[in-house]
Amino acid sequence: MKLFIRVAYLGTAYCGYQVQPNGVTVQQRLNEATRDLFDTDCDIVGCSRTDSGVHAREFCATVAQKGTNTLQTTIPQEKIPAALNARLPEDISVLGAQLVREGFHPRYDVVAKEYEYLIYNGAVRDPFLISRAWHLPARIDEKGLLRMQTAAKCFVGRRDFSAFRDKGADTEPGDACREVFSASVRRTGEMISFRVRANGFLYHMVRIMAGTLVSVARGGIDPAALPVRIASGERHLLGMTAPACGLYLDRVIYGEDAGIL
Amino acid sequence: MKLFIRVAYLGTAYCGYQVQPNGVTVQQRLNEATRDLFDTDCDIVGCSRTDSGVHAREFCATVAQKGTNTLQTTIPQEKIPAALNARLPEDISVLGAQLVREGFHPRYDVVAKEYEYLIYNGAVRDPFLISRAWHLPARIDEKGLLRMQTAAKCFVGRRDFSAFRDKGADTEPGDACREVFSASVRRTGEMISFRVRANGFLYHMVRIMAGTLVSVARGGIDPAALPVRIASGERHLLGMTAPACGLYLDRVIYGEDAGIL
Repeated sequence: MKLFIRVAYLGTAYCGYQVQPNGVTVQQRLNEATRDLFDTDCDIVGCSRTDSGVHAREFCATVAQKGTNTLQTTIPQEKIPAALNARLPEDISVLGAQLVREGFHPRYDVVAKEYEYLIYNGAVRDPFLISRAWHLPARIDEKGLLRMQTAAKCFVGRRDFSAFRDKGADTEPGDACREVFSASVRRTGEMISFRVRANGFLYHMVRIMAGTLVSVARGGIDPAALPVRIASGERHLLGMTAPACGLYLDRVIYGEDAGIL
Repeated sequence: MKLFIRVAYLGTAYCGYQVQPNGVTVQQRLNEATRDLFDTDCDIVGCSRTDSGVHAREFCATVAQKGTNTLQTTIPQEKIPAALNARLPEDISVLGAQLVREGFHPRYDVVAKEYEYLIYNGAVRDPFLISRAWHLPARIDEKGLLRMQTAAKCFVGRRDFSAFRDKGADTEPGDACREVFSASVRRTGEMISFRVRANGFLYHMVRIMAGTLVSVARGGIDPAALPVRIASGERHLLGMTAPACGLYLDRVIYGEDAGIL
């Protein structure tokens, strides 16, 4: 057996999830905490890579002794979250831990992931939302919101999402076919929330979707023309890549056979 | 006429509102921003003094040229919030500005102030609530919550609140008689919110109330004994001073004759 953990983090202080040479990452902090707790170097495999500044309300990972696929420990699993949290900075929190079979893979076994993108549409900046939402002070009216809602529906379905992929060091090669199960936009007070659930996401996919929705709201893209633009596979026909600070990995869903509680 | 401003700030990075020799304060940042915008040193008078780490969703202040009680400016008042915000750090935001008569005083003319104190009662720490709520991981059950609600009612009324005053550099001398208009406790999910509205507050008064409510929830203080303890004027008969990070100045209310919009 190996260890499965659910983690939440405020991404503001980190250069993303995955270990990299320049800058502190969430994975690095998890490496340090697990090494200290289990008294051995560990391999930590995450459910995805989040960019610098992106947040996670639920991120999943497995922990095994380095070079193996198992973790030997006498620590009762119910005590592991508190023991890891005592070794982690305050902006990373282990929410839960359980043992899973060795064959389980936290990325390949994902059935769906859900992201939320927050747009703060208040006229004046809100000090409590610094680095936690994209601030767009120009009011998006009811018509604009309806256009966003219409556009979000165009994201749903199984298709090639090449137009929603940025080029970058993290660009995964290969197939850009993904299935989006749901996509919706709603306003609560001055906050506009975009939620999207899919079986997988390309590099910057949610952020390009959010940027595209804002272009749609502002009239730069007609929602009726969106399906053709998406089908073109041309990145430049969609909106900007929205800033990282508004993005939250919200939920990671595994199949029932994975045995995740 | 002089300028009246409504301000929100995240208190985490500040040594409270009021200028002091050691450490950066909100007032200092407002001094710098107004000096730069109006091209003259200004006197800024606030509606209250908040402690180090305490937040404000609405804080009120007046701005006048140093040594006078007026502000001469050609900048239209509707442009002042954005102009000040461009000169303030992101964690302070001017929400609104208007001109008020010279006789108006932002502290003495307050009719009521309302504070909210947030207790995060989730079992595991939440990275998104660092420095924004008091984390009490031990679950307060329904009975404990009812005890807190009963106790909060004992705070309401006009009386001597000496028992709710800490000694410190900021302790104002004199009369400890205040009128509490309302005090209530409610739970939403894992968050417990204590709201209290009064015509004025003593040094640490809300934080001692919050600490007392937690003692009541845990059985350390019987709510039936609370009125006698309050009447005693003895600080040590009440609960601990709850941490600053959970406290928010939420609303400042002036009389209709003050002409505040």
